[in-house]
Amino acid sequence: MEANNIESLHLTINGKRLWNQLMDLGKIGEEDNGGVTRTSLDQKDIEARKWFLNLLEQADLSPYMDAAGNIFGQIIGKNPELPAVLIGSHLDTVNSGGCFDGAMGVLMGVEVLCTLKEKGIQPERTIKVVSLTDEEGARFDYAFVGSTALVGTEGADKLKENLAAATDKEGISYLEVMRQASLEGEYFNQINPDRLELAQVREKDVKAYIEVHIEQGKVLENEDLAVGIVTGISGGEWAEVTITGEAGHAGTTWMNERKDALTAAAECILEIEKIAQDSSGSVATVGKLEVKPGSSNVIPGRVDFTLDVRDIDNERRENTIAKIYDSIRAIAADRGLRCEIRPVQSLASVMSSPSVMKAVKDSLQEIPYPVYELPSGAAHDAMVLGELTDIGMIFIRSKSGISHHPDEWSSFEDVALGCEVLYRTTLKLL
Amino acid sequence: MEANNIESLHLTINGKRLWNQLMDLGKIGEEDNGGVTRTSLDQKDIEARKWFLNLLEQADLSPYMDAAGNIFGQIIGKNPELPAVLIGSHLDTVNSGGCFDGAMGVLMGVEVLCTLKEKGIQPERTIKVVSLTDEEGARFDYAFVGSTALVGTEGADKLKENLAAATDKEGISYLEVMRQASLEGEYFNQINPDRLELAQVREKDVKAYIEVHIEQGKVLENEDLAVGIVTGISGGEWAEVTITGEAGHAGTTWMNERKDALTAAAECILEIEKIAQDSSGSVATVGKLEVKPGSSNVIPGRVDFTLDVRDIDNERRENTIAKIYDSIRAIAADRGLRCEIRPVQSLASVMSSPSVMKAVKDSLQEIPYPVYELPSGAAHDAMVLGELTDIGMIFIRSKSGISHHPDEWSSFEDVALGCEVLYRTTLKLL
Repeated sequence: MEANNIESLHLTINGKRLWNQLMDLGKIGEEDNGGVTRTSLDQKDIEARKWFLNLLEQADLSPYMDAAGNIFGQIIGKNPELPAVLIGSHLDTVNSGGCFDGAMGVLMGVEVLCTLKEKGIQPERTIKVVSLTDEEGARFDYAFVGSTALVGTEGADKLKENLAAATDKEGISYLEVMRQASLEGEYFNQINPDRLELAQVREKDVKAYIEVHIEQGKVLENEDLAVGIVTGISGGEWAEVTITGEAGHAGTTWMNERKDALTAAAECILEIEKIAQDSSGSVATVGKLEVKPGSSNVIPGRVDFTLDVRDIDNERRENTIAKIYDSIRAIAADRGLRCEIRPVQSLASVMSSPSVMKAVKDSLQEIPYPVYELPSGAAHDAMVLGELTDIGMIFIRSKSGISHHPDEWSSFEDVALGCEVLYRTTLKLL
Repeated sequence: MEANNIESLHLTINGKRLWNQLMDLGKIGEEDNGGVTRTSLDQKDIEARKWFLNLLEQADLSPYMDAAGNIFGQIIGKNPELPAVLIGSHLDTVNSGGCFDGAMGVLMGVEVLCTLKEKGIQPERTIKVVSLTDEEGARFDYAFVGSTALVGTEGADKLKENLAAATDKEGISYLEVMRQASLEGEYFNQINPDRLELAQVREKDVKAYIEVHIEQGKVLENEDLAVGIVTGISGGEWAEVTITGEAGHAGTTWMNERKDALTAAAECILEIEKIAQDSSGSVATVGKLEVKPGSSNVIPGRVDFTLDVRDIDNERRENTIAKIYDSIRAIAADRGLRCEIRPVQSLASVMSSPSVMKAVKDSLQEIPYPVYELPSGAAHDAMVLGELTDIGMIFIRSKSGISHHPDEWSSFEDVALGCEVLYRTTLKLL
């Protein structure tokens, strides 16, 4: 389908209403460079939450906030005791991000519920749209707060402990910021970091969680497609590596006498690139690297770098990681240097539910639009929700694959078509 | 010679006096970790200058300070119109450096003059010891201030302009600090950054400049020798390199889609290492490297790194640099990235004067002690003085080659022997 042929598709949802809401929301936290900054519970995030609560009120979607600050809108089903369908994403952004990442998925949920209302459809089961607190983790270096509370992954006490330990650049703890936010009036007074167990939902209360998100990659663009079905979300392994050599005078130490931590790290970085390339599926990134002492005339004595390895295939990812760790150790040993590898976090891949994927596929064929499946290399709230319930994701084409950047963009046509797919998918799950 | 056989050598100079002065001076600016910090005209440097002026007064060496803060002691020759012999080095240190680098060379000059006085030798020509202002450049990132003023390399106006532009981490300019220092009383009132031409000496007034310095490398230690004759000081080329690729999401960008500036930089760093190794003489160092944006989950879009290439052989160094620049450009082009190479400074090698080298060699044979020659990979004030007059340097063994570090060390026996060589060398030049 050509993008400008969208008019021929007779969409059920109101694409223009959705687009206008998306653009309005994008003005909250907009900066001179066109970027949007709404980090968790900062002034702009609170403004966006109030805007969103008002939107839900106007649409008669019975909004409420939970103890973790997650915001819900809903249509109560004919049989409210049936497990509910959840549509969600997040309203927070990274620093100087775009207006699509997160917000688009939440507003599509609202559009789906509004369309149901307008059509006079009261579903059997309850359907909710949810804006989850802090998916990005940009302010406190601590992400997935709302979804973690909802699922109860860590237990409320452990989560509270983590929120007490996480601080923003001003040194204010997440816990303190949550307490302050609870003073923002109606709805906000439900925020209660001391009783996060109140936010937890039970497995039997949820049938499925569906999230629409921009792709943040170029796969759909390369395939010339507006929409894709996400097969699963890649697991990842994150680690920190330290290579320790010997600092020395850049002018007086012969090449064969050196124990240069940076040349060793350079060899590791190239080997990491090669192992990932040869794996035919894993991606591996060294994104952060520090050289000490870091003077132009001193041979580096120590280098610290981060490692980020992802793969939808858990076994292949573990294989890639093992090869990388072995090669780092071998390079350091060959050069007579020391190395330390500290694994930081490890997440297994989460696969989309076959029944949700089938609902998306059937919806695409109804429209009709080509069916295309792809994995998600980026992590999403759906990954956390996957521990609670069946999940599914729909990706929308990202212009040039750019995200977390003022240039992040998806077209009106792609967004409207994606929302239509979400609407039809939802109907099949109700 | 075994180090403990020094007693059998019947030294002329007073090694214990020299050693005690060196240890006393090392207490000024000493820190808890054993390191010494006296950066240019800071409180501790001024304290060291006062201590040194007092030492020269006590030794009846007619001290004076010049407009650049260089401190001289002297024995006026029988024919004071003859070109003088200069022995010198510097009293300033890097941050947390050792007590030998610089200070040892200055105090050896004092010991030589004291020995001449005690022996009742009044030489034909004037002999001076000089402590040169700011060899290290640690405080203002601007080095060789005293020697540059003495030689008049840049002209007084240009030097003043540079001093006005150079600031310390408090934002205070070098010029302002010099003006403040001129208020420290006797001797200091000669400091005059507005008339630096007063510090300049004429070529016809100086016969030779001799500097004794710790080796800052392991060559003498590996040869099991206390002292070596420096053949020349390696020239260097310093440059900054920027590699520009494309930042991207670490999870969603396939390996073959990446334009990773860090993997490209890693390839450059390994190639720089290999080119220097293959050159059989050049040393090349990447000492400083910054990754942008520098997040663990973002593919690096830009890397900046420094390059430091040195070689005593100017032609070989230029060849090494050309190969390095070519390889950086080729690596960037192969990977579809952009690179920019900005040469920062280029210094040709300075060779020691054959007549000064012969005087050192004859002195070693007199003692007798093995004659061993080596180049200096590190830059020294002698490099700047080489533009004015004949220069020569004597290196003293550094324990484990360590310098610019609290562990910097040379033994009493090596220091005493080195001073004896300096004394005998000086006698031959008077």
